[in-house]
Amino acid sequence: MQTSDRIENAMKRALDVAQAGQPPAQLSAALRYAILPGGARIRPTILLSVATACGDDRPELSAAAAAALELIHCASLVHDDLPCFDDADIRRGKPSVHRTFSEPLAVLTGDSLIMLAFETLAHAGKGDPSGNDAARAAQLVLSLSRRSGMPGGICAGQGWESEESIDLHAYHMSKTAALFIAATEMGAISAGHDPEPWRDLGALIGEAFQVADDLRDALLDDAALGKPAGQDDLHHRPNAVARLGVTGATERLSDILAGAIASIPSCPGEAALAQMVRRQAQAIMPVLPQHNRA
Amino acid sequence: MQTSDRIENAMKRALDVAQAGQPPAQLSAALRYAILPGGARIRPTILLSVATACGDDRPELSAAAAAALELIHCASLVHDDLPCFDDADIRRGKPSVHRTFSEPLAVLTGDSLIMLAFETLAHAGKGDPSGNDAARAAQLVLSLSRRSGMPGGICAGQGWESEESIDLHAYHMSKTAALFIAATEMGAISAGHDPEPWRDLGALIGEAFQVADDLRDALLDDAALGKPAGQDDLHHRPNAVARLGVTGATERLSDILAGAIASIPSCPGEAALAQMVRRQAQAIMPVLPQHNRA
Repeated sequence: MQTSDRIENAMKRALDVAQAGQPPAQLSAALRYAILPGGARIRPTILLSVATACGDDRPELSAAAAAALELIHCASLVHDDLPCFDDADIRRGKPSVHRTFSEPLAVLTGDSLIMLAFETLAHAGKGDPSGNDAARAAQLVLSLSRRSGMPGGICAGQGWESEESIDLHAYHMSKTAALFIAATEMGAISAGHDPEPWRDLGALIGEAFQVADDLRDALLDDAALGKPAGQDDLHHRPNAVARLGVTGATERLSDILAGAIASIPSCPGEAALAQMVRRQAQAIMPVLPQHNRA
Repeated sequence: MQTSDRIENAMKRALDVAQAGQPPAQLSAALRYAILPGGARIRPTILLSVATACGDDRPELSAAAAAALELIHCASLVHDDLPCFDDADIRRGKPSVHRTFSEPLAVLTGDSLIMLAFETLAHAGKGDPSGNDAARAAQLVLSLSRRSGMPGGICAGQGWESEESIDLHAYHMSKTAALFIAATEMGAISAGHDPEPWRDLGALIGEAFQVADDLRDALLDDAALGKPAGQDDLHHRPNAVARLGVTGATERLSDILAGAIASIPSCPGEAALAQMVRRQAQAIMPVLPQHNRA
């Protein structure tokens, strides 16, 4: 099965769990709205690519991990769009969750998606009577929660924006790189490998993604971006284009991607993984306006 | 060590993890503010009481489970107090998190506490080289996420308040009983027992707590309650006092508590557990105004 189909199927299975029985209808609809149709699903694609490179001996576990990671990402988008943060009207080319439903339902949608992410991991850990899957599931929960919360996950990254003085390295590592590190770590863990050697790859892809995102925010318009453009300047957020200019930021992006490919640990699927990183790099490059890349 | 000390120590250990290194200072302070000093810690007390009744053979795991459950409860209070929900100025006798810090930091505090809850469980699962703790940790994650999210957890409970037509049984089971069910389930799981026979006890304690809360909301003033009183009527929320009157609701409370004690599964610590339920019942009874009972 294609990677993209594995991800969409796993997302739908997770959604089925959250919508079982007769849940409150609006919150149920808001969950579906927040995760389907998706964006580029970059993080779960990286996760499954790393799992494949590591042998992917428990494909149900890696698919669940991919869905869990994407659920956390979707939750963060819903909360980031709230009036008290970006106050975004559109996301992925359609009205944001709080615009379509309500602010209370948007808060609850984010919270529910976070819970669903961890439920998805724990549920997948029950598959194997030997207990191996449970041990991997617990490790997956540890990686995902660390890369999502405080002091170094995406919550911390967003938290830095409330500080008068920002630790720029910590800000970028937590705000953007953290979930890419989760992607490579969780891919390795799903396949029973040590996550540690895979951390650098995630951090570098995350850094590349941040620079590409800064370029896209500066260069594209709302329609091409699928969300409001120019937000970094508007909110005075530190960004690579302001620091290095467009040419400098583009050069920096190439260097980081070369470093990312060089950092791939020796494994049977090394060449295919390098290819995937190059493909993802093309997908995030801002030269061609493309929709739904969030 | 006393149950209350075990809980506070476990909460502080979890907080230390979230505040390690140099995290964003305000969000870090908001996390501490949201969980210390605590309320009555009723849910983790029940959890540890059930674990003790089941033998409590892995006390580090049960303490972590108690902290994780209370972290989710604290997260729900922070989000429930937000302007788009209750817009509460005070909580546990002091200004709510969004009043003291900001609305963005209150959203992030709730999110971070949820992540920390699951990180705490996963981390505790690493303690035992045989892998038994990991299997229990995965089960704990499953119970806590189910009782917190959709379709039957506290997020669903809050979600019902956005519906025009409310399923009252589903509303109460998810809004209040869910985390009490988590308490008894997680107590049993921590000690290696099957959680299923413990579910009724949690559901009944939860129901009792809901009726007691309705009575307290109707009978006490802001100062005695430590938060704004009369919120149920103000927000037209379904409640036992409106349905049964004060006398009827008080009688109903006694009946539910008797049922709860009768539901305790046969186990060595049965008598002590019945005693604990009676003590908790006294603590939530609205006759004596007491602070910090949220």
